[in-house]
Amino acid sequence: MASASLSLTALPGIPLIAPGDDLPALIIAALREAGLGLVDGDILVVAQKIVSKAAGLYVDLDDVVPSQRARDIAARVGKDPRHVEVVLREADEIVKIGPHVIVAAHRLGFVMANAGIDESNIEHGHGGRVLLLPRDPDGSASALKQCLDQAFGVSCGVIVNDSFGRPWRNGVVGVAIGAAGVPALVDRVGAKDLFGRRLKVTEIAVADEIASAASLLMGQANEGLPVVLVRGYRAASPVGPAASLIRSRERDMFR
Amino acid sequence: MASASLSLTALPGIPLIAPGDDLPALIIAALREAGLGLVDGDILVVAQKIVSKAAGLYVDLDDVVPSQRARDIAARVGKDPRHVEVVLREADEIVKIGPHVIVAAHRLGFVMANAGIDESNIEHGHGGRVLLLPRDPDGSASALKQCLDQAFGVSCGVIVNDSFGRPWRNGVVGVAIGAAGVPALVDRVGAKDLFGRRLKVTEIAVADEIASAASLLMGQANEGLPVVLVRGYRAASPVGPAASLIRSRERDMFR
Repeated sequence: MASASLSLTALPGIPLIAPGDDLPALIIAALREAGLGLVDGDILVVAQKIVSKAAGLYVDLDDVVPSQRARDIAARVGKDPRHVEVVLREADEIVKIGPHVIVAAHRLGFVMANAGIDESNIEHGHGGRVLLLPRDPDGSASALKQCLDQAFGVSCGVIVNDSFGRPWRNGVVGVAIGAAGVPALVDRVGAKDLFGRRLKVTEIAVADEIASAASLLMGQANEGLPVVLVRGYRAASPVGPAASLIRSRERDMFR
Repeated sequence: MASASLSLTALPGIPLIAPGDDLPALIIAALREAGLGLVDGDILVVAQKIVSKAAGLYVDLDDVVPSQRARDIAARVGKDPRHVEVVLREADEIVKIGPHVIVAAHRLGFVMANAGIDESNIEHGHGGRVLLLPRDPDGSASALKQCLDQAFGVSCGVIVNDSFGRPWRNGVVGVAIGAAGVPALVDRVGAKDLFGRRLKVTEIAVADEIASAASLLMGQANEGLPVVLVRGYRAASPVGPAASLIRSRERDMFR
């Protein structure tokens, strides 16, 4: 059995991203300048924030008129009512309201704090502004994969990651909100364990684990390293989108 | 700014572990045989299963007499009542009972499926047996760190990882249930983001992210790679145990 290994490299040279920036071109240039290129099976993990910024998904809070419901919730959680209004617009469902946090199901299905809207690392005008999640993160990942594949003549994977809190555990971890060319969820149904028994744990959230691994390098906000190259992961399963990581409401015991 | 990178290598040559095996000695030998050794700051991630096996934490189901409560729950979830009895003995609290799963708070504080007890990858006798979590995973990590530090003349980190399911998302991911010599939870309170604002996300579950990264290599059960060396993580925060990753009941909105 060969020794399995994996390397992760944060790309230097990704500038601050502004609306309209050509993210694929910037990443391709950074890969070339770093002398890394891409080989088949490489996976690029891209921070949600720069995908959203390039798409210009800002909302100026000055333009937001909070509803009565937003004002009520804002008073309970201690947030700007306009910010809460944007959360409500992005959310399909409020799952739980706690001190300083609204756990909401984003309309894409992600259950997360404040429906994925935060105010860190975004430039603020007078009224302040917030940044929304990409409208179609799996689609963003696919589009980026297409550009990268073409530029380097390979088939790579792309993951768009974000940081989520969890019930029961402190701290946030990286998770995949978009994916292309990677087996986001590996189904082990029927696989045998070392002793020939059928495994009871049937699914592994591989794209989330890759997203977490990449977060380790991105983690230091003051360094700004929003793109990480993961090399060496041997995918043995069919690819699938990050949407497959979202538990359906019917299967969810905690909604 | 230097390019940040991280490498992960699954150690070859770790044999099947039996009760009483000298796990530190086996890992030290495997590191030497692989020509890897250890350098300061290296982190070894060790699967919970082999820590529990070396400690002989098996329970023979033939020896377990299920209580009425265990039989009732077993009927609801479709499990062996003796298995449920062991879950109840290990658990401080049953958080939720769903189809085929009991979400329980292990007495160490981890909220997880079946209080961390599973039946995969353990040798079964006539009556079957199950494997419990280590009694003190942070202590196991510390003891292993001490042996490794001494053998290689370094200061390394050790994480004991396991796979947890999550509410709202499909699939399991690696998490840290024990840690020594690593900043399990990095507190970003007061850190400034790229635009000088105070970050609102205050804590990053670094040990969980490392545990997930290592799981990517361990993941294939039929290959049996229970020890992964993580090299290159630059810890800039004080070390802390995996217990710091457990959210206190008072701060938890989902219990």
